[in-house]
Amino acid sequence: MERIVSKERIRRDIETIASFGRDGGGGRTSFSYGEEDGEVRKYLYDRMNQLGMTVSVDGVGNVRARLSGRDNSLPSVLSGSHVDSVAGGGDYDGVVGVVAALEVAQCIVDRKIDIARPYEVVIFSEEEGSNFGVTCAGSKAMTGYLKVQDLKDLKDQDGLSMYDRCRAAGFEPDSISNETLSPGDIHGMVELHVEQSVLLESESVQIGAVRSIAGLCQCRISFKGTANHAGSTPMRLRQDALVGAAGFISGVRNIVAEDPSPSVVGTVGSIRCEPNVSNVIPGEAIVTLDVRDVCQEAIERVVCACRLLMDQIAADFRLEVSFEVLGRQSPVNMSSGITRIISESAEKLGLSCKTMDSGAVHDSVLLNSVADTGLIFVPSSEGKSHCPEEFTDMDDIAAGTEVLLSTVVSLCNN
Amino acid sequence: MERIVSKERIRRDIETIASFGRDGGGGRTSFSYGEEDGEVRKYLYDRMNQLGMTVSVDGVGNVRARLSGRDNSLPSVLSGSHVDSVAGGGDYDGVVGVVAALEVAQCIVDRKIDIARPYEVVIFSEEEGSNFGVTCAGSKAMTGYLKVQDLKDLKDQDGLSMYDRCRAAGFEPDSISNETLSPGDIHGMVELHVEQSVLLESESVQIGAVRSIAGLCQCRISFKGTANHAGSTPMRLRQDALVGAAGFISGVRNIVAEDPSPSVVGTVGSIRCEPNVSNVIPGEAIVTLDVRDVCQEAIERVVCACRLLMDQIAADFRLEVSFEVLGRQSPVNMSSGITRIISESAEKLGLSCKTMDSGAVHDSVLLNSVADTGLIFVPSSEGKSHCPEEFTDMDDIAAGTEVLLSTVVSLCNN
Repeated sequence: MERIVSKERIRRDIETIASFGRDGGGGRTSFSYGEEDGEVRKYLYDRMNQLGMTVSVDGVGNVRARLSGRDNSLPSVLSGSHVDSVAGGGDYDGVVGVVAALEVAQCIVDRKIDIARPYEVVIFSEEEGSNFGVTCAGSKAMTGYLKVQDLKDLKDQDGLSMYDRCRAAGFEPDSISNETLSPGDIHGMVELHVEQSVLLESESVQIGAVRSIAGLCQCRISFKGTANHAGSTPMRLRQDALVGAAGFISGVRNIVAEDPSPSVVGTVGSIRCEPNVSNVIPGEAIVTLDVRDVCQEAIERVVCACRLLMDQIAADFRLEVSFEVLGRQSPVNMSSGITRIISESAEKLGLSCKTMDSGAVHDSVLLNSVADTGLIFVPSSEGKSHCPEEFTDMDDIAAGTEVLLSTVVSLCNN
Repeated sequence: MERIVSKERIRRDIETIASFGRDGGGGRTSFSYGEEDGEVRKYLYDRMNQLGMTVSVDGVGNVRARLSGRDNSLPSVLSGSHVDSVAGGGDYDGVVGVVAALEVAQCIVDRKIDIARPYEVVIFSEEEGSNFGVTCAGSKAMTGYLKVQDLKDLKDQDGLSMYDRCRAAGFEPDSISNETLSPGDIHGMVELHVEQSVLLESESVQIGAVRSIAGLCQCRISFKGTANHAGSTPMRLRQDALVGAAGFISGVRNIVAEDPSPSVVGTVGSIRCEPNVSNVIPGEAIVTLDVRDVCQEAIERVVCACRLLMDQIAADFRLEVSFEVLGRQSPVNMSSGITRIISESAEKLGLSCKTMDSGAVHDSVLLNSVADTGLIFVPSSEGKSHCPEEFTDMDDIAAGTEVLLSTVVSLCNN
């Protein structure tokens, strides 16, 4: 099967987008609704317009750029991802999926590939949750999981709401209530994304056809003791909140390691300690807990064990504790039909391919509630992600884009 | 023995000083060289002048207010403490020692108590280290441990040096090189301070005569791993810096608990985690370690064991680590002569008294290098310190002030 995507065009798009968000640490920092995001959008809108696509933007800044098919009355096929980053992130996460979807449009136009259904490149806003702490906020709004009132309630670090930030960026957040996708509105969605792990690289496989996406449970646990002088308070009289939190962090690792599910992961990613000065015994420590697996029972088992651990620590160290579940997401199965098309496309192109699960959540998971969705992975060097060292070889990205093109064309014609 | 100090006058002084620094959290926040500090100084200078004392202020704002003795050619006896606070501190730490020293002057004047040597009330600047991170900076400058160049090197959070802050507050920092105390310049120094622990209260003792002050070793330990996606990185491939730090924090507590010295304490008071977001495996965690004891060998033993623990954690979790000693202070023995005078004064006044050690460092520890020094403790309710709930009963403060008066008069006449 002929290779037709342009590696050079893909490279130029990725590098141009990265240049707008280059930060002092050599990484990429570009949050939705920020100045850098505006520059990225301008560049991409220009590219889309040059391809003759019809660009529309919804109330939270999600972009849909449409290429006509033979029958524009048919529900369209979507492909895309996000262009926002974490603070100090890399150049590939999200961006690769948008650039690849755009390259697919370019190939369809340049090669006059016949498609029955319209094809749309989609860019989701605020996938990383960098502004408001909620991931996939754009795709959640597009699929009705976030309403206008939610946009008003979500606040960034400066206390500004997602609603206000959207308005300031030139969008009309009130309109999202009329823009929500319902089942049947679109025919399907395929996303290309970097793996963000080491499975493909370690097995020297070029393409991952994702079967399931891990569910997750995010929690906040607080330990409250008594802040006191670090020099004059005997050890036996202390109620050290940080000692409690430390026991919890170590314990989470052990609980996860001993769980029967081999794929379950648990992470304490953030900690806040008060008053956090060297000569005062910590009076309060608050940590987050992030548990994920493709098996829902394993998530529940680990979260439950962590809660019991917290209670034990409270008793051992005479601390007040609280456990709050901030968010849950169930494991999701991608469309088995699309997963098969991805695998077959890779085979036809002579690319090695592996059916696998994903520990990370992507916008396509949200779209899964309204249409068949598929997810293609390309390898991440050393699995590095959300850091300046994040890297995927351009040959792998081009190979993934060929698979995406083949999959999109197949979906547009059935 | 007659009780002569005025509890009401002491209460009024403490409450007035507290009123200048009252903050939003109900505590007291008054940093040296700040606006609140200026108001406190104005109030105290007025009180000193009314008592006919000669007020002089050195290059870093340390105050010495002198009351004549029979022979003003003799080296004087000093008493006092500090009036600066930590952020969100209480009303008693430091302030009690200054107000009590002033009450002693008032009693000497009002009762025409005969003193051979001059008596001086002293107020040390910047004891808490709230501006520049170095505790006892005022008494360190007075005793030559901080030079003019050091004042230029010490910076606050806004990047302003202690030298510049002193000048802005109206002092002449260059003059400290001529103002340094040498052995023989003063006859002795006694400080009254709140205990900041629970020993006196738990044994229902009113007066503590301090024998030794704990030495300390302050360190910074960093753990470096790899920041990575919390969903897609299998547990076995993680290098989680926070898991390493957690093991260290728990381990410090165990090392201290198992040490043969019953008085040694060890605290991890602060932690910084990077990037500190819930869905990213921590790439770096930096903690502080504060180890104190009256026994130098115990400090060394604990610090050494903590260092070995860090190396073990580095190997176990494949982390890069570093261990940096930020500061050391040796244990200090107070003058046994003054400690005996304090105990005898308490006995004559019919007050319960205990000879004890101090885990916290005070300005008098610095003065110990140039003259005999003594330290009197009064009970702290529930040991609370450096917080708005800090409290010492006014009867206990008045009792401590009687002991201070008796001790000062005794030192002034021998």
